Amino acid sequence: MKTPVPDYLASVLARCDANDGGALADYIPELAHADPNKLALALSTIDGEIYSAGDDQYEFSIQSMSKPFAYALALQHHGIEKVLEKVGVEPSGEAFNQISLDSHSNTPKNPMINSGAITTHSLIPAETGELRAEKLRAFLSEMAGRELSFDEEVYQSELKTAYRNLSIGYMLRTVGVLESDPVDIVEGYIRQCAIKVTVKDLARIASVFANGGIDPHTGKCMLDRMVVRQVLSVMISCGMYDAAGDWLTTVGIPAKSGVAGGILGVLPGQVGVAVFSPKLDEHGNSVRGIEIMERLSQDMGLHLMEGTPSAQTIVQGIYYLDEQKQIRVYELRGVLQFTETEMLLRTIQQEPDAPHSIVLDLSHITLIHDVGRRMLLEGIDRLIDDAHEVLVVDPDGLFKAETTDLGHEVKHYANIQAIPH
Amino acid sequence: MKTPVPDYLASVLARCDANDGGALADYIPELAHADPNKLALALSTIDGEIYSAGDDQYEFSIQSMSKPFAYALALQHHGIEKVLEKVGVEPSGEAFNQISLDSHSNTPKNPMINSGAITTHSLIPAETGELRAEKLRAFLSEMAGRELSFDEEVYQSELKTAYRNLSIGYMLRTVGVLESDPVDIVEGYIRQCAIKVTVKDLARIASVFANGGIDPHTGKCMLDRMVVRQVLSVMISCGMYDAAGDWLTTVGIPAKSGVAGGILGVLPGQVGVAVFSPKLDEHGNSVRGIEIMERLSQDMGLHLMEGTPSAQTIVQGIYYLDEQKQIRVYELRGVLQFTETEMLLRTIQQEPDAPHSIVLDLSHITLIHDVGRRMLLEGIDRLIDDAHEVLVVDPDGLFKAETTDLGHEVKHYANIQAIPH
Amino acid sequence: MKTPVPDYLASVLARCDANDGGALADYIPELAHADPNKLALALSTIDGEIYSAGDDQYEFSIQSMSKPFAYALALQHHGIEKVLEKVGVEPSGEAFNQISLDSHSNTPKNPMINSGAITTHSLIPAETGELRAEKLRAFLSEMAGRELSFDEEVYQSELKTAYRNLSIGYMLRTVGVLESDPVDIVEGYIRQCAIKVTVKDLARIASVFANGGIDPHTGKCMLDRMVVRQVLSVMISCGMYDAAGDWLTTVGIPAKSGVAGGILGVLPGQVGVAVFSPKLDEHGNSVRGIEIMERLSQDMGLHLMEGTPSAQTIVQGIYYLDEQKQIRVYELRGVLQFTETEMLLRTIQQEPDAPHSIVLDLSHITLIHDVGRRMLLEGIDRLIDDAHEVLVVDPDGLFKAETTDLGHEVKHYANIQAIPH
Amino acid sequence: MKTPVPDYLASVLARCDANDGGALADYIPELAHADPNKLALALSTIDGEIYSAGDDQYEFSIQSMSKPFAYALALQHHGIEKVLEKVGVEPSGEAFNQISLDSHSNTPKNPMINSGAITTHSLIPAETGELRAEKLRAFLSEMAGRELSFDEEVYQSELKTAYRNLSIGYMLRTVGVLESDPVDIVEGYIRQCAIKVTVKDLARIASVFANGGIDPHTGKCMLDRMVVRQVLSVMISCGMYDAAGDWLTTVGIPAKSGVAGGILGVLPGQVGVAVFSPKLDEHGNSVRGIEIMERLSQDMGLHLMEGTPSAQTIVQGIYYLDEQKQIRVYELRGVLQFTETEMLLRTIQQEPDAPHSIVLDLSHITLIHDVGRRMLLEGIDRLIDDAHEVLVVDPDGLFKAETTDLGHEVKHYANIQAIPH
Repeated sequence: MKTPVPDYLASVLARCDANDGGALADYIPELAHADPNKLALALSTIDGEIYSAGDDQYEFSIQSMSKPFAYALALQHHGIEKVLEKVGVEPSGEAFNQISLDSHSNTPKNPMINSGAITTHSLIPAETGELRAEKLRAFLSEMAGRELSFDEEVYQSELKTAYRNLSIGYMLRTVGVLESDPVDIVEGYIRQCAIKVTVKDLARIASVFANGGIDPHTGKCMLDRMVVRQVLSVMISCGMYDAAGDWLTTVGIPAKSGVAGGILGVLPGQVGVAVFSPKLDEHGNSVRGIEIMERLSQDMGLHLMEGTPSAQTIVQGIYYLDEQKQIRVYELRGVLQFTETEMLLRTIQQEPDAPHSIVLDLSHITLIHDVGRRMLLEGIDRLIDDAHEVLVVDPDGLFKAETTDLGHEVKHYANIQAIPH
Repeated sequence: MKTPVPDYLASVLARCDANDGGALADYIPELAHADPNKLALALSTIDGEIYSAGDDQYEFSIQSMSKPFAYALALQHHGIEKVLEKVGVEPSGEAFNQISLDSHSNTPKNPMINSGAITTHSLIPAETGELRAEKLRAFLSEMAGRELSFDEEVYQSELKTAYRNLSIGYMLRTVGVLESDPVDIVEGYIRQCAIKVTVKDLARIASVFANGGIDPHTGKCMLDRMVVRQVLSVMISCGMYDAAGDWLTTVGIPAKSGVAGGILGVLPGQVGVAVFSPKLDEHGNSVRGIEIMERLSQDMGLHLMEGTPSAQTIVQGIYYLDEQKQIRVYELRGVLQFTETEMLLRTIQQEPDAPHSIVLDLSHITLIHDVGRRMLLEGIDRLIDDAHEVLVVDPDGLFKAETTDLGHEVKHYANIQAIPH
Repeated sequence: MKTPVPDYLASVLARCDANDGGALADYIPELAHADPNKLALALSTIDGEIYSAGDDQYEFSIQSMSKPFAYALALQHHGIEKVLEKVGVEPSGEAFNQISLDSHSNTPKNPMINSGAITTHSLIPAETGELRAEKLRAFLSEMAGRELSFDEEVYQSELKTAYRNLSIGYMLRTVGVLESDPVDIVEGYIRQCAIKVTVKDLARIASVFANGGIDPHTGKCMLDRMVVRQVLSVMISCGMYDAAGDWLTTVGIPAKSGVAGGILGVLPGQVGVAVFSPKLDEHGNSVRGIEIMERLSQDMGLHLMEGTPSAQTIVQGIYYLDEQKQIRVYELRGVLQFTETEMLLRTIQQEPDAPHSIVLDLSHITLIHDVGRRMLLEGIDRLIDDAHEVLVVDPDGLFKAETTDLGHEVKHYANIQAIPH
Repeated sequence: MKTPVPDYLASVLARCDANDGGALADYIPELAHADPNKLALALSTIDGEIYSAGDDQYEFSIQSMSKPFAYALALQHHGIEKVLEKVGVEPSGEAFNQISLDSHSNTPKNPMINSGAITTHSLIPAETGELRAEKLRAFLSEMAGRELSFDEEVYQSELKTAYRNLSIGYMLRTVGVLESDPVDIVEGYIRQCAIKVTVKDLARIASVFANGGIDPHTGKCMLDRMVVRQVLSVMISCGMYDAAGDWLTTVGIPAKSGVAGGILGVLPGQVGVAVFSPKLDEHGNSVRGIEIMERLSQDMGLHLMEGTPSAQTIVQGIYYLDEQKQIRVYELRGVLQFTETEMLLRTIQQEPDAPHSIVLDLSHITLIHDVGRRMLLEGIDRLIDDAHEVLVVDPDGLFKAETTDLGHEVKHYANIQAIPH
């Protein structure tokens, strides 16, 4: 049997094929010459499985889809507080042009409009615009699993008509949000927008965000969870339209579009997606891209508010290890956040009082959050107070490794050891 | 052992006790006389377990927290499209007063500001303001599991100084958003705001929304999933602050506050929460309530962008039912949405080609979404095409019941039957 | 010979007759039934000569043209400072509806939008709405030189659909700008708008404002000059359009329109004008009325920036009264403001030093402003210091009457007496 | 006797001396080094008499006071309609920064904010920024009666920190309002702002505008009356504050300030004024300058709404030239606009019917407007129809010269001749 998922994606593309609306971006000659019929879609699960359909090998410039990644780099380097001093997180509303600043703070309203993105670019830790663009290219290449390159023609073409961005740059320099030559910063920002990607690259990069910052292919932590949370929060409220509420209700996937025709989406805990089709609507979003995102949301239930309950699956099984019923095993599966740990503890609390050993088998746990660790430690304390012996099977060291750092009292630790499965 | 969750809640309350900021609502005499020291917190899991701490028996008026529920009733009765003609879904931004309308449509920007809420109230299907308020009371009572009542003193008190709401009502009548006497509608709206609740009531009601519209205590479908999705989307973008982006990044829980001091939150798929403390900040939100919500988000990882991956736990076990290895069982657990079904199908596709029976045991599946059903049916088709026999164990009829409605080809159905476990 | 001025007015009307644009006000049934072909124009000089053409006996409701007069009454009674605390003087800009308040002061932006006019009405010193409307009617009647009456049908008709004004009234009550029952105030305001006038009434009333507050027919000071200055300033910036600059450049006459089809204009020092034609443009201004005002401005040079130099005419003649050339007479004509007095003093300073008497003949001076009096007194002092004897011919007591109040040193006064002409 | 006017000006300065508020402009180093104690005031009548006090020889850079003059040059060259396509005439309201454009037309709101002034500069008919600045310098020099020069230090200093203006320039280039390199235009604009003037220069230039575009010293028509009307209209609504209504009510003099500390005012038909004091308020207006303007308005009655009636002085005398009373002379003085001509015709219409000659003595008429000429011709026609002979004494050819151009019927002309006085 072959999984039908690729066929689903192909059929989504096929249904959009008839949609002939929109027009090529006209303000950059290079983009105006794009092939309007290109159409591609890719989807990556958070464990790294990638499905794709259409022109999935076709490279296009990343454009504004670079904004959330530059924001992520800035947040990772400076911390959220520092970046907030320079760029806000509020939707810009219906402002007809994006030059205006927040009237109280005199800073850009969010990192997804050009003024915020130029500021964000300036916060990538490197000396010049060229080096900052290179730093972003390297970061995206690592997540994409291949060396990405710049589209030099697009870069040169955009440089020539960069009036709006230069206007924004000088304005940001006036108010002190930018602290050095705005021309270098604007040129670096334009170069950042010229990184070439395919939908498969983007879906793969997006899956790192869907997976809380950990690259599913390498297991490497690329970004702190708090950075990912911040980036995705800003994408959902400021990423797509002036009309944030419309996108949130009808699609409900944190997303960002680029003027070359790409749209990138991240549904946390579930999937990363990317689409490409060059014809744009009046907001500068890919017409077919929007339609595909809507189908993914409506037909496939991919929406932020379609919460998937995971608590009920945390306890995979409960059984006695021995015939005397002296050793009782809790086989766990999934991740331990608040709701899963609450369910686990609620189940354990029905354990009879008689003194016997309890084994918590974490072999199939893939992630333990802080709150899960703290709650689990507290639960183990209480079991010990009730005269149980507790053993933890933790082959990957998820639990042990970090709990010692937390300075938890050592006396309980004597009892917690891995037992062979 | 006792689960430590109640102690967590108690400790959250204890830490907020020192926070002495804010002031009682002063515009309504009845609210100005509230006891400023009352403090309560309740949390409900989506399977209906309720934890609470503090003054959890204390009744207060629901006020603006009635808005999302009136919106839900209106959506359920009229459908999303009809309601969108009357009330939008966009954040209202920094408008200093909430009387103004969307400049294009001349309708209220969203149902969480007063103009939108008064309009929403008028859409509850009943003849008079009093009957509409009664309808909402009955709806909330059913979800709360007890008969709620009106606070007649608060109602009378607010009627006397309802200048702002009368102003809004007449303005809505002018532009035709309201189609009958605004005084009756405003009085009904004020009555709706006077429903008395406790934090436990609210948490229980919130858990219905966290559970996709199904009451975990009764199993009854109170609201369509699309309605719940819509309500929660609007709560996250418009529920708390003018500054939607700030709430989204720092708390990330769809929420609504009431001027009596309550805050209600829903994290889809995970929990419903409610807090109460009467002293308010300058935005009219409970000061301690905000602090508690922040702690729940930051300390307990309850944030919309902390996606809980559920795909990896869908296949709980795979084993042969017989010694000849002719019957292979897939034991499933959880819900079947896109990502879980994708994982299941990906696992099944490694099944060897040899003709043997495959049993899909859905006994521990609690919900199958449309997309999950469609994908599973397609997968079963393909297994049958590969000459497998497929049997589905479906004691609750989750799968069978509705697939026949979908008109799926009958020929496969001969093979799909419940087998005894 | 007959002056051709009436023919000019008639020809202006004739040329507008072809203009068929606009539509009758539709929101009030009584106005919707107006005769769309009525057309009238009246013009009053500041000495009270009235010219008119067309349906100059036709009565219509004053509507918003009552606003500047209610403002004048409020200013006259409370003083400018007090009124400014309640209502501003800034154009409201492009706000699509006029409910919004100034974001800093929370008060209406100006007295020409409805929120400001309702507030202004509440400042007319009388107990009830009915009495306030009556007070305004009496005030206008005195200036019009006949008893005006209310259009009771229009009043009743507007009361029934007063949603917008009631909305505004309640909003003003909420923010404390109104301090009593908004329903009574709104009803009083609506009654004020139902005063019936003809274009001749309006032109006559307007001429009082053009004449600095003094009724040219009675010589009675109806309003302080500072009040008139304030009212006209607000009319020019806030009276006609959202687009104040457009009106100021193309017409340049302080004006106010009413939704029944009237437009009232005041060119200070020159004329009062009024036009009437019931069909309105999308801003609610009379279409033909606007065209007529434009013609008056462009064809007849009636524009605020067409300053008429009056200094050069102040000295009508200089001659010796006697053969010995011991008594030299300055015959003056016009008003004595800064520029005229400057010119007079500049002329006098060429007077030879030889000691002789100087007679200032004020017989044809119609008005002496404060600054003119002060400058003239100072000039007289200096002439006396130069050993001249100075005599002032002041049959109307314009100069003497008030200078004594100013406490000017008495020693010079011995020399200042009326001499027979 | 010496006229006390200079003493008035000196006393106004003396009273402002105590006002120690404000701060030097800090954004340009050259301005930050100005002597904060400089204080000067000049006033010019419309016949060219100049009074001054304080540091009236001190030169400072004209800065934003160049804006109305550049606007005048653009209007004179392109016509009002063409210029309106590029720059509006509406107050910009409370916009916190002046980069934003009118949301409908995408053009600057008015020529007094920087975006409008940069656009206006680009409309001065010359090839480069340097030549455009030179053209303005020459124009101002001619009106000032001496060769003005550029302050090269100020120019160089402003060039270095021209971030805001460059931002505006690039934005205007983006939307197509500017059609060539914005850097050259911005540099030209900055150069235009560096023209050095004294208060006497400014008052003299202002008097040309007060005099309807005719230089009182040379009699040369520098600007069309319609251009002057347009410039002054824009100055009164957009020249000084964001709060146009405040300036209009409390000062009522069309004015423009410059960041070096100057303020220029024009009261049409009366005076041109200029003040200088370098310390600025938070709006960038000279603190003492504002105070002086307020005093001129309030103490000296110089306010646009203090209309000076000039009609009543038009007929200086009526007498028979001969003993037989066959020749009756009307001695006229002043200007002939609508109101004066109306008064003249009203007086003449009381002329007895008996056939005799009527002499209109225009020797002391200084200006005849179009409307005055047309009305007078019509009156003469009617007198002739009544069998009068009419003779016009017109030594300066004011009447005759242009009436022939109007193509008025020749038959009446035989009767109209200059007679010796």
